[in-house]
Amino acid sequence: MKPRNLFFVAAALSLLAVPLPAVAQEFADKAEMEFVLNTFSFLMCGALVMWMAAGFAMLESGLVRTKNTATICLKNVSLFSIACIMYYLIGYSLMYSDVDGGWIGSLSIFYNLGDNEIALIGAEEKTPEMIAAVTSNGYSVMSDWFFQVVFVATAASIVSGTLAERIKIWPFLIFVVVLTGIIYPIQGSWTWGGGWLNNVGGGFSDFAGSTIVHSVGGWAALAGAIILGPRKGKYTADGKMHPMPGSNLPLATLGTFILWLGWFGFNGGSELALGTAANAANMSLVFANTNLAACGGVVVAVLMTQALYGKIDLTMALNGAIGGLVAITANPDIQHSMLAIVIGAIGGALVVFFIPLFDKLKIDDVVGAISVHLVAGIWGTLAVAIFDDADFVAQIVGIAAIGAYTFIASAVVWLILKATIGLRADEEEESDGLDKSELGQEAYPEFGQGARSLGG
Amino acid sequence: MKPRNLFFVAAALSLLAVPLPAVAQEFADKAEMEFVLNTFSFLMCGALVMWMAAGFAMLESGLVRTKNTATICLKNVSLFSIACIMYYLIGYSLMYSDVDGGWIGSLSIFYNLGDNEIALIGAEEKTPEMIAAVTSNGYSVMSDWFFQVVFVATAASIVSGTLAERIKIWPFLIFVVVLTGIIYPIQGSWTWGGGWLNNVGGGFSDFAGSTIVHSVGGWAALAGAIILGPRKGKYTADGKMHPMPGSNLPLATLGTFILWLGWFGFNGGSELALGTAANAANMSLVFANTNLAACGGVVVAVLMTQALYGKIDLTMALNGAIGGLVAITANPDIQHSMLAIVIGAIGGALVVFFIPLFDKLKIDDVVGAISVHLVAGIWGTLAVAIFDDADFVAQIVGIAAIGAYTFIASAVVWLILKATIGLRADEEEESDGLDKSELGQEAYPEFGQGARSLGG
Amino acid sequence: MKPRNLFFVAAALSLLAVPLPAVAQEFADKAEMEFVLNTFSFLMCGALVMWMAAGFAMLESGLVRTKNTATICLKNVSLFSIACIMYYLIGYSLMYSDVDGGWIGSLSIFYNLGDNEIALIGAEEKTPEMIAAVTSNGYSVMSDWFFQVVFVATAASIVSGTLAERIKIWPFLIFVVVLTGIIYPIQGSWTWGGGWLNNVGGGFSDFAGSTIVHSVGGWAALAGAIILGPRKGKYTADGKMHPMPGSNLPLATLGTFILWLGWFGFNGGSELALGTAANAANMSLVFANTNLAACGGVVVAVLMTQALYGKIDLTMALNGAIGGLVAITANPDIQHSMLAIVIGAIGGALVVFFIPLFDKLKIDDVVGAISVHLVAGIWGTLAVAIFDDADFVAQIVGIAAIGAYTFIASAVVWLILKATIGLRADEEEESDGLDKSELGQEAYPEFGQGARSLGG
Repeated sequence: MKPRNLFFVAAALSLLAVPLPAVAQEFADKAEMEFVLNTFSFLMCGALVMWMAAGFAMLESGLVRTKNTATICLKNVSLFSIACIMYYLIGYSLMYSDVDGGWIGSLSIFYNLGDNEIALIGAEEKTPEMIAAVTSNGYSVMSDWFFQVVFVATAASIVSGTLAERIKIWPFLIFVVVLTGIIYPIQGSWTWGGGWLNNVGGGFSDFAGSTIVHSVGGWAALAGAIILGPRKGKYTADGKMHPMPGSNLPLATLGTFILWLGWFGFNGGSELALGTAANAANMSLVFANTNLAACGGVVVAVLMTQALYGKIDLTMALNGAIGGLVAITANPDIQHSMLAIVIGAIGGALVVFFIPLFDKLKIDDVVGAISVHLVAGIWGTLAVAIFDDADFVAQIVGIAAIGAYTFIASAVVWLILKATIGLRADEEEESDGLDKSELGQEAYPEFGQGARSLGG
Repeated sequence: MKPRNLFFVAAALSLLAVPLPAVAQEFADKAEMEFVLNTFSFLMCGALVMWMAAGFAMLESGLVRTKNTATICLKNVSLFSIACIMYYLIGYSLMYSDVDGGWIGSLSIFYNLGDNEIALIGAEEKTPEMIAAVTSNGYSVMSDWFFQVVFVATAASIVSGTLAERIKIWPFLIFVVVLTGIIYPIQGSWTWGGGWLNNVGGGFSDFAGSTIVHSVGGWAALAGAIILGPRKGKYTADGKMHPMPGSNLPLATLGTFILWLGWFGFNGGSELALGTAANAANMSLVFANTNLAACGGVVVAVLMTQALYGKIDLTMALNGAIGGLVAITANPDIQHSMLAIVIGAIGGALVVFFIPLFDKLKIDDVVGAISVHLVAGIWGTLAVAIFDDADFVAQIVGIAAIGAYTFIASAVVWLILKATIGLRADEEEESDGLDKSELGQEAYPEFGQGARSLGG
Repeated sequence: MKPRNLFFVAAALSLLAVPLPAVAQEFADKAEMEFVLNTFSFLMCGALVMWMAAGFAMLESGLVRTKNTATICLKNVSLFSIACIMYYLIGYSLMYSDVDGGWIGSLSIFYNLGDNEIALIGAEEKTPEMIAAVTSNGYSVMSDWFFQVVFVATAASIVSGTLAERIKIWPFLIFVVVLTGIIYPIQGSWTWGGGWLNNVGGGFSDFAGSTIVHSVGGWAALAGAIILGPRKGKYTADGKMHPMPGSNLPLATLGTFILWLGWFGFNGGSELALGTAANAANMSLVFANTNLAACGGVVVAVLMTQALYGKIDLTMALNGAIGGLVAITANPDIQHSMLAIVIGAIGGALVVFFIPLFDKLKIDDVVGAISVHLVAGIWGTLAVAIFDDADFVAQIVGIAAIGAYTFIASAVVWLILKATIGLRADEEEESDGLDKSELGQEAYPEFGQGARSLGG
């Protein structure tokens, strides 16, 4: 209700007051400046990570067939919403409260900004003591919540692409409830919440979550893909693979660029601070390395597909970029940026190798997310020990513990869902496309071919 | 013309100077730091709000039929441009200069940065007095202009979706001239410019513009929809409604995600300051609540459409997100974030109820913008009195006064346009699609069906 | 490996410590605050410029025909990756190291953050001397690298659109290697690296690169377009021009909005600093003017196409926006913002004139990039002398020298590629579309018409 603009008032006053009387200069409080900068970094970087939800939605929309496109859009917007609410209700607390070297936090419903911030915001006169009480935390409580919540949404986004074109919406969304409210936060507490993985050897090292975010999404997707089975007709009896090409490659390209942009927030914001020269310098390194790793992944995927298949593969190039980004995520502040290119390039190469490999294993991953997020995520986590100062044992323990836990917990949930409400659309629904049975809508009613079975 | 990079010079100097001589430390000026941070917040948040123009363009492109898609793109890029120029020429001044408790500002053509900033920028030596003269304003003048101008563009964007598929381009653009140069700024002055609504009861409270931006766009759209009439064939004589499904739902999904991202700037930047711990803490709360309200809107729309229709509706889920965002806009700093979810969820629910209701009233709103921006906007403005400390009377007076004024002023302009140059494409043009008659271009010449009448 | 969240620890401590003991207040170091703010500005603005790569990809995807769409996507993601790696390996050093008034920097492989930053980041205790050694540079080394690298990628992006639909992928990518590793950095050193153009008259003035980035891309594209020749069937023997309409105008619209958003980083970040009130005020002016120039370009293009052709042309309106943006790029801090509208409007008008003119000259520019980036870039550079205080002679020398050098160097590379591996797809490949021959993929396999020759 306050006037939103004081310019004209100030302009009028400044006319009266020129020349301004000499006043004693007031200096900026160090802790307050750091608090503001740390907080603003969380907010800007968090907004970029939120934008990755759009990237996954576009990437997956471009890589499924038109008859399943509206469904994948619905899943993406819904899973983001569910992830945020579940993490607000219980996830953040499970991940960050009272972990104390253990394996799970305490359960406290409804997370909010603390009393100190409430007092400061509401105070007519903001005393130095009130400011100090707030700034001693380093950043605003809700800015951290906002930054962390978009990470859990990222993990959930990874799952939807793998299982596209055959999983029903409701069992998928129920899985998201459990993944984002319980499975993800528990393993997240082991490292970022101050839990037991910090005490293994030199401590598990995963700067922004090659393992903690990306491989977790990948393991959950892998469990689902195995239990759900491949799309009808994808693998024929004679051992052939039936290609089911993505319906809109410019959208997939857009999705990749969105993810690339969002990753600056994902890795950069994981510096967790911006208030000092050391933080800002390290964040700069993170931005540069994140970019270079993606570039390495693209160039290798382009060269490899040309060499292996005689033609460049656009989808592989896009997945190469993401593989490079996933790989550098465990160590984006590696100090020689040439190594970032190498780490990303190997990430891209792994993607080019593993996507056909999973097809040989008849694990049907519609968008290649398991290769991109799980395989490149493991690689990136190991690379911290190879190229930087992480403890090899701790890295392996972390990868294995988080992997085993996530895979088993996810499989249990998938199996329960399968045994109860069922996971899969029936044959006719799958053949007609999920958009018809699940939504009764077509993504492209005028030029799509939703009801025509191209691949199955 | 200065060298753009001083690193190598600095590096060379630092080689000479190591170890650096101990110098007296210079501290940062408090007012200058606040000025810089407030200004940067306006710029970053304003850029995010500008991005909402792309969101509206994509949402509307996805929800119209292909034969009208190029036209809606042209309208969106043009209306943004007109809005900015009109607000530069006269709107900002009408809204913010010399309002003094009244109902309109003074008219001063050509708004620019003030003399103090010009002097400081141009000065070889920047004296403390010159800096103080600038920083006493709190933020850079043009950063505020930039932040405010993208709000008026948002209000105009709301109108284009509702009236799509039958209004001609030129009358629409002329309406935008009046809306953004005159109608919007006048009502904006009543609250944000320091006008009379601040003096009603405890003062009208609308943090980022549920009413002042969103319902204003909604009222203008409603007036236009009534005067323009529905699309040919939309409502048949026997009381049936003919569905005219959107042609590109992934684009509509993208548009929604863009709006969601942009809303962090819309609501977050409306904190209007970032220079202190209290500002940063409150801005964090705003980001978190904005996100949660959108999530609440999505989840409720998904659940409700499943319950009501037996299938989830993607378009409703998207509009549910936007309804949630509009609803929280009046009060995104509400201190218990659970309430943000509730406010957003009710916003989403209202959208699901009102979109079919307007169809029953034969008010043809192509994208659902009236339900989303007007209905949820009113709800959000009332919610400040229900859940927070706003004055109920002031809220109702504000909603009613702004609504009556905007509706009547818009209706007058629409009627004048109808009586003079005409508003509507003729029957054949509408049937063929506006792209053919207005642009002579097809949005998708290779796979669209611009000339095929799907619905009319 | 550190716990990622200290909130609960801090909260617990604050319970013990309330009321906090009065402590001596610590003030923020001025140089460190400026360092942090300058650095963060580079990172945020650089991320926005990186996003322009997506803008070019979408704009070009929308303006080519479906049979060449996947190829243009592949080119855009690859050229960005190559540009970043080449600029990391050699470009940045050629542009910025030891130029000293000359015409080229020294060649030093592998650019990385300097010893001071490495020492500071690694130090357990960060002494004032270590901080001062870092902050004396003004910004973090890698933040500047990140900001500069996205500029070279922009220059390369300009080329791909012009030459679309007939150039093979590999010769194009090899050209990008040379352009971004050698051609661009050398001319960049002349002005921004501290080279000889600073000493011509009052010094060449090009704030963010109307000439140094945009016309360079335009000259390289022009040389390529002449050597490559037009698309088969574009210009018929009887002097007619065969229209080959873009296949997806909403994507082109999206691309334009992305570029518009990214331009705030492009021009705003080119202030190169944010740490003082003067910097922040000037950056605000840059944001406002950048926006207004784009608006001027749109409005003029809309009015002109209506006047000239009787119908508005959406593609021209989009190119008008970009023409306005290119034009203001040399002088976005011009102090009267009305002039920004005028400069942008003339940029838009030039685009509307020159696109058909190049067609008359049978120079086939698929997306209009030469008119937009080269013509409007020259105009914008001259405008600094007309409307602001740049030296006319220096502007003309700069435009001519950079133009002649870039055109000749590019032509030499194009000719070598033509004589060796060849530039063009053969007739059948061009007729079938490059997606088939170069990638073996279709952009829109279900509704595109990749294999149908629409225009050639």
